[in-house]
Amino acid sequence: MTHIGVDMGGTKCAGVLFGDDHVILAEMSVATPVGGEAVIDAIVGVVVELSKNVQERPRTVGVGVPGLVTPEGSLRYAPHLFGVVEMPLQRVLGDRIGRPVRVVNDNTAAGWAEHRVGAGRGFNHMVYVGLGTGIGGAIIANGMLSEGQHGFAGEMGHMTIDRGGARCVCGRRGCWELYGSGTGLARLAGAPGETVTGAARNGDDWALGILHRFASDVAVGLADLVNILDPGCIVLGGGVLDPPEPLLGFIRGALGECLGDASAHRRLPEVRAAMIGKRAGALGASMLAADVR
Amino acid sequence: MTHIGVDMGGTKCAGVLFGDDHVILAEMSVATPVGGEAVIDAIVGVVVELSKNVQERPRTVGVGVPGLVTPEGSLRYAPHLFGVVEMPLQRVLGDRIGRPVRVVNDNTAAGWAEHRVGAGRGFNHMVYVGLGTGIGGAIIANGMLSEGQHGFAGEMGHMTIDRGGARCVCGRRGCWELYGSGTGLARLAGAPGETVTGAARNGDDWALGILHRFASDVAVGLADLVNILDPGCIVLGGGVLDPPEPLLGFIRGALGECLGDASAHRRLPEVRAAMIGKRAGALGASMLAADVR
Repeated sequence: MTHIGVDMGGTKCAGVLFGDDHVILAEMSVATPVGGEAVIDAIVGVVVELSKNVQERPRTVGVGVPGLVTPEGSLRYAPHLFGVVEMPLQRVLGDRIGRPVRVVNDNTAAGWAEHRVGAGRGFNHMVYVGLGTGIGGAIIANGMLSEGQHGFAGEMGHMTIDRGGARCVCGRRGCWELYGSGTGLARLAGAPGETVTGAARNGDDWALGILHRFASDVAVGLADLVNILDPGCIVLGGGVLDPPEPLLGFIRGALGECLGDASAHRRLPEVRAAMIGKRAGALGASMLAADVR
Repeated sequence: MTHIGVDMGGTKCAGVLFGDDHVILAEMSVATPVGGEAVIDAIVGVVVELSKNVQERPRTVGVGVPGLVTPEGSLRYAPHLFGVVEMPLQRVLGDRIGRPVRVVNDNTAAGWAEHRVGAGRGFNHMVYVGLGTGIGGAIIANGMLSEGQHGFAGEMGHMTIDRGGARCVCGRRGCWELYGSGTGLARLAGAPGETVTGAARNGDDWALGILHRFASDVAVGLADLVNILDPGCIVLGGGVLDPPEPLLGFIRGALGECLGDASAHRRLPEVRAAMIGKRAGALGASMLAADVR
């Protein structure tokens, strides 16, 4: 029995064919095209190509997309995927592919994969936070995915942490993702995030200083999530944490400071780097598609 | 079959004896004493007195307390209840009363009652926010209470909404409850909250202006909760919303503005005033004690 997971990102559409126990049998990617029909063609093309690797056709197809996804798999808001908003993506893909397809938010998918087989395994109360261009994530409570009434939960990047701060694309001011994302790191450094993390690994004092300040920007939002959700584990994903150190250690320290007096009265959550890496979105989407729900 | 719920507040200890369908059979309250032993004596006294109203002794006893409560019913942090921190309250009360007692956080209890039989009934994804001296609440996801890994979820009053803001008792800066609570309203007005709400009901322009500004302080945190949790319904409790109007209408308006562009892409939650009122803590504690969990 095989399953296909597709991670439809802003720059590329990456598909993985999984066998038993999520073993990777094949994978491929194509550049993300512009426009709704072209995006659908790209996903269908990846699924068809991957399916050629096995005689029996894959049982389920899961697709992770960067945007607000309704429980019916329609995209309501996807600023990084042009021309697909308000499209009933799940239904259209199902019709084209000729078998059940499930469309989910990409961070929801990645978080579910980390919960089931990754860094958050064994925690019934877990938060996944993807620190990428923006910040998005997934919430697991009582061992279940908390997707919210309309399927839009996990948009913690749009918590206000500075009411008087800069305007965000979402219309609010001082959203966490303006500071704690990869974009926030680059703005803080006046240089690409990879430059800073690379230099920090080589012990560069300037870069280490920047990462220290950035860690406290990340910790503000994490402390909010601890107060609201009391997770046993926070799993941090996204390019900023690749590789995790020294940033992860700085974030742990900043979170402890940030929770102040409260730390003495509550156990802090484990803060871990994501384990599954760049295939987490595809794996999680495939797992969610396969799950009886 | 009867059940007892006790709401152990900072100023009084209020108990209610419930019959079938949560009908109120008797109630009483005593002033909250100082010190752990005295608090236990007060709760036991209320339970014993209420039990005298029925021949068959009440099946369960639930107690709501203002503080962080572990799943075992121990108090870890209770700034408004002196001398009871680190006390295994649930075990001690069970021993003294001679039957199972469940100790829970007071806002958790009130939120559960509103979910089950109050303003949030029928919503599988709901948030209760109690706007009192501080701000605390309860989260319901997938129809279940989200209590977190250590039972401490729902402390949304300690989200940072203004990083450069005033210091909170919790050690952080710019916590939501500094602005959006009854205390925040009184600070904004330079007068007691009841004075403002009373004057606003009589159409006083100054009071209406204050409530408008206060509504936007409340809405900032509510918008954060919408982004994180996507509830179908937000139930607002606490003294500030008694009576609900005109404040509730102002809060709804401010929340719509606050979510900005996102409002067009997601359905806003219903924002409702709590229905059960001052007995919600006792009722919820009694319901949680009676639930098989």
